[in-house]
Formats: sequence, structure tokens, C-alpha cells
Amino acid sequence: MFHTQTLELPTTKKQEMIDITKRVRAVVSASNVQNGLCSVFCGHTTGAITINENTDPDVQTDILNALERAVPHNEKYYKHEEGNAHAHAKAAVIGFSETVPVQGGKLMLGTWQAIFFCEFDGPRNRKVTVTVMG
Amino acid sequence: MFHTQTLELPTTKKQEMIDITKRVRAVVSASNVQNGLCSVFCGHTTGAITINENTDPDVQTDILNALERAVPHNEKYYKHEEGNAHAHAKAAVIGFSETVPVQGGKLMLGTWQAIFFCEFDGPRNRKVTVTVMG
Amino acid sequence: MFHTQTLELPTTKKQEMIDITKRVRAVVSASNVQNGLCSVFCGHTTGAITINENTDPDVQTDILNALERAVPHNEKYYKHEEGNAHAHAKAAVIGFSETVPVQGGKLMLGTWQAIFFCEFDGPRNRKVTVTVMG
Repeated sequence: MFHTQTLELPTTKKQEMIDITKRVRAVVSASNVQNGLCSVFCGHTTGAITINENTDPDVQTDILNALERAVPHNEKYYKHEEGNAHAHAKAAVIGFSETVPVQGGKLMLGTWQAIFFCEFDGPRNRKVTVTVMG
Repeated sequence: MFHTQTLELPTTKKQEMIDITKRVRAVVSASNVQNGLCSVFCGHTTGAITINENTDPDVQTDILNALERAVPHNEKYYKHEEGNAHAHAKAAVIGFSETVPVQGGKLMLGTWQAIFFCEFDGPRNRKVTVTVMG
Repeated sequence: MFHTQTLELPTTKKQEMIDITKRVRAVVSASNVQNGLCSVFCGHTTGAITINENTDPDVQTDILNALERAVPHNEKYYKHEEGNAHAHAKAAVIGFSETVPVQGGKLMLGTWQAIFFCEFDGPRNRKVTVTVMG
């Protein structure tokens, strides 16, 4: 069985990490899947999907700053004229999908894990597709 | 239902991003899967799978240059003697699989998304395995 | 059919890559799945899952050093007070899941590929969840 739902996600900042765990959990519940997998997919090229801690919001800031250090937004060699080359590269580094186990009708996230949409070129209206199979 | 096909992919440059979207779409069509998921997997350690824009080819150049800045090909601390340590690290950073939703018999890629094989140590004959489930 | 098993994985170093291929293969065998996919998931925020070469152990050292160069452990801008901000960022860069094809009852890894758990803030007791579907 495959249950798919697309989440609409307006972002508000140039770069930010948005916790979408509650919305993904709601799709898992609605699917009635007991045991299987949940795939979370980002349908963009300057946004991405990751998993990380949401207890201390400093972790998100640190991750965004670490990415900025590794892939700065303003490099002379960028040729793409929209000024968001760094956002395309950051999204490629983070990745566009993560797959999480489902057991007993629930997402099997670890104790400290939350699922995040990463915005690297906002604000924009984004879409995240959640597919639950089982 | 699982439908699997392995694509043969000769690369021609030391480092390049090759758009394989058409070939992945053909596997989805051949699978007859209407609703499900499509997994794209790279069976190598110096190549990777990503998703990004293919309208402006400068985006690919910028991503490869941003990766080269973050993980340079010629660092004194590399111990691996084949001279491709950077390629192993770049592949680890980009990742070896992406999973894309399938709806109505079609890949649900976003407007600007294309699927790329990333070559970091070419030219070589590469293989990408596409699995459609639904 | 979905077959899920969680591997317990004690790590011994601050940062290391641990080859878990044999344990993943054992889960695939136990599942009796002939054709399908195998998802490997890391339930942590300072560890990650990747694929790479395990013939020359220098490759692992080079990858860890390349990540340390790109995302240093000791940057003044880190705000997270546990001293492991770099580990959260490295895990985000590597990613938390990989999906590998299964054919003829076996993992379809490429010739040089092994599956690794990446420890970025050890030593700790880690868990990796393997789900085989087919």
C-alpha cells in the first residue's frame, strides 16, 4: 500500500530549517500503515530534506552557518546569474529525500531526531511529498 | 511490485554531472507502476546521485566548483594512493541514492528538477540501478 | 513484505566509519526477500549512513579528514553548548538513510561498495535500522 500526501510549506527567511515532523507524523497516521517505510521528498532545487535535533534551536543555526562556511553564498566563480548558486550546491550536499522506518503505526525516529525542510533561497512557497508504504 | 533496471552510463570527463532523467522516466513507464516510489542508486564509490536544475548548465558547473572548494582534489593529508580521495569524499557528501514519488504513472519531479549522476573520477563506465515500486 | 531489524552498534572512537555491510547482508538473508530494496537508517543526529570503499582503510581516514576540513570541529560561531555542533552538521551533510537494491536475495552493492555507519561524536551506543522490502 502506498499513501502519498503533498505538504504546502511557505518559508519566511532567506535560509532556515523548518521542523515538519508533526506534519509527517500526521500523514503516517492517516495512511493506517503499521509496518513499513516513510519517504520524505523535496520537489525543489534550492531546498532540501534532512534530519536533526530540534531541542536546542542553536543546532539549526550552527548547521546553516557550517554550510555557509563550506559553501559560501558569494563566490567569484559562480556563473549562474540568479545569485543562488550556493543554494543549489547546499541542497545537493544535504539531499532531496530521506527514508524513515514505520513500526506499530509510528515513525521510528530516534530520541533526538526531527525531520526538517531546509530553505536555502527563501522566502518561497515550497512543497514536500510524503509517501508511506507498508 | 518491484521493477528494476540497470542503466549503463559511460562518462567522458574527470568530473561532470550527467542528466539521466529521461532514462529514469523510461524505466518508470516500462514498470507500469501508477502510484509508488522510484529509487535511483549509484553502484560506485567515486560517483553519486543528486537532483538539481538542468535549465541553466551553469548550475552544474557551480555545484562542481563549490564541491571542489569544500573538498579540494589535492590536499596534503590524503593518504589513499590512487589520487582520487577527493572523489570518494565528494560522493559521500552527495550520497548514493535518492527516492522520488511516482503518481499517475509519472515521476513527481518538481518543475526545475532533473536527476543527475555525478562523476568525480572519470571517465569511466558507470552503472545506475533504478527500482520502481508500487 | 517488510522485514525490519535494528542493529545495536557500539562505537569506540570520537570519529570513525564502521563497516556494517555483513550485518546488513544478514538482515537481507533473514528477510527471504528475493527482489526489492533495502533501506538503512541511522536513528541519531550526530551519526550518519554512507556507502564507500573498504578495501583501503585510508579512504575512510581521508573522508573523515575531508569532512573535518569542510566542517571543522572548533569554530567560533558555533552556539550549541555541547561542543558537538560540527557532528550535527557533518551528519546532515552525509545523510541519515541510503536505499540499496536487492536482487536474487542479495544486496546489489557495486564491486567496491560497503555500507558504513559514520560516528561523528563517539564513543556511543548507536542503533541502525535495516528495512528490507520486496
